[in-house]
Amino acid sequence: MPTVYPCVVGHEIVGRVTKVGSTVTKFKPGDLAAVGCMVDSDRTCPECQAGLEQFCPNLTLTYNFPDKHLGGITYGGYSDSVVVDERFVLHVPANLDLAGAAPLLCAGITTYSPMRHWGVTKGKKVGVVGLGGLGHMGVKFAHALGAHVVVFTTSPNKKDDALRLGANEVVVSRNAGEMRKHAGSFDFILDAVSADHDIDAYIQLLRRDGNITLVGAPEKPLAVPAFGLIFGRRSLSGSPIGGIPETQEMLDFCGAHNITADVEVIPIQKVNEAYEKLVKSDVKYRFSIDLASLKSE
Amino acid sequence: MPTVYPCVVGHEIVGRVTKVGSTVTKFKPGDLAAVGCMVDSDRTCPECQAGLEQFCPNLTLTYNFPDKHLGGITYGGYSDSVVVDERFVLHVPANLDLAGAAPLLCAGITTYSPMRHWGVTKGKKVGVVGLGGLGHMGVKFAHALGAHVVVFTTSPNKKDDALRLGANEVVVSRNAGEMRKHAGSFDFILDAVSADHDIDAYIQLLRRDGNITLVGAPEKPLAVPAFGLIFGRRSLSGSPIGGIPETQEMLDFCGAHNITADVEVIPIQKVNEAYEKLVKSDVKYRFSIDLASLKSE
Repeated sequence: MPTVYPCVVGHEIVGRVTKVGSTVTKFKPGDLAAVGCMVDSDRTCPECQAGLEQFCPNLTLTYNFPDKHLGGITYGGYSDSVVVDERFVLHVPANLDLAGAAPLLCAGITTYSPMRHWGVTKGKKVGVVGLGGLGHMGVKFAHALGAHVVVFTTSPNKKDDALRLGANEVVVSRNAGEMRKHAGSFDFILDAVSADHDIDAYIQLLRRDGNITLVGAPEKPLAVPAFGLIFGRRSLSGSPIGGIPETQEMLDFCGAHNITADVEVIPIQKVNEAYEKLVKSDVKYRFSIDLASLKSE
Repeated sequence: MPTVYPCVVGHEIVGRVTKVGSTVTKFKPGDLAAVGCMVDSDRTCPECQAGLEQFCPNLTLTYNFPDKHLGGITYGGYSDSVVVDERFVLHVPANLDLAGAAPLLCAGITTYSPMRHWGVTKGKKVGVVGLGGLGHMGVKFAHALGAHVVVFTTSPNKKDDALRLGANEVVVSRNAGEMRKHAGSFDFILDAVSADHDIDAYIQLLRRDGNITLVGAPEKPLAVPAFGLIFGRRSLSGSPIGGIPETQEMLDFCGAHNITADVEVIPIQKVNEAYEKLVKSDVKYRFSIDLASLKSE
């Protein structure tokens, strides 16, 4: 499969199938196809049998991970083609822009999966904390799932963008008064912040049995007062990507709702520059690399 | 209702009904009856309508809470009788020892409710952290629900007692090697510790989708690293008491399984001494006051 649009850092890949092995049944040459964070797992453990390969103790990550077949490490989408077992290859709906589809394979599934797991549906009130690569997908999914979406951001200048992406309301989280207005009202909050932040301020916004799921991973442990969880029987959880069946479900959902990530497409020659911008959060909202640019090397 | 056995601090009450109002249908004089942490709520909010009065924003606590009817504050079970609306009075199975039944009204329901909420059943592996008033009830319930029960304690000398109460295994939590053996294996952990402790050490013991529920409330916030929750899609939650219907369910369950708390029965004259012992955790596992002793005042 030629890898057309992997993201920086190479674990979100879309392209077209060029060749299939003799036992392949899911794909034929010419099909649009995608590969996410995983390219292999043991396929026999209870997690794999449940279609939750992301929890397999023996999975092979797409990028920078020991390669069981070739030795060395996996290089993901930094290549003009990639060989992957069909179990770990997804179908991409034809109506989706390919560059914008690539980030669905990690940022997409990472935000879609916990929303499905914790029951985000029409009529639920959903918060999204942090409007970056993950957060902006969270807003699109929560909106498409029919929820009332509130974006929490430290940057007042992100307000217009949040509304454009599908938010019904935007709260500047540094404003304690604005935060208090939402106390005890959220069914679900997706926390996509990887910087240190006051998690209890968000726990207090959950209603009874509400859940806040971390998809960003701050370096330092979060400070969680017990009472915020006890009153309201609230829960704090985390979630990685999703399994292969759910990743396909997510792509199909994106096809039906015409959802892709907002991307800045770059040639491979600008990857270091893009990385530096990414570290400074200066990207709206994901870089997608056009690997046709490899040919001009 | 005469209050025969309230616990220290007066919010776990059992006794016999002496008199009922003309519109009372659930009780008649002579019935065994119990009152827990709540004596009133607004009865109209969605929580009350769902039988989850513990989350009513307008509930009246049994002890040391503004009394809407008489003014002043509520005094709970420190009395030879108490008047309570039948909605907040529970039936006590006749086979239960009354002194041991009193703590079911708070320690009992506080540990039973999260186990039911998070699906503790036969075949599940359940941990109980801390073997005190709450923890010892957690062990009894988890065992009666059919789970494989592991008690975590900092005191090796509690081992025999934990096994007697129904534990299948006892882990001394200061022993990192013993802890590691259980990594990724628990469906549910009940954390009944109110001192500061390393919550991540227990989060690491949960399997995929496992939950750890706090019923103790350490004074300082707990330090929760995001990755412990993200890998395994684990959750950390809290839980207070239960609603009235579930409290009755718990008492009926105790009747069916002959479960009561282990108590030390004291006369009211020893209440201050008992309080000092309680602060030092020197009680197995709850003090229950025999209020017949009030008559000798």
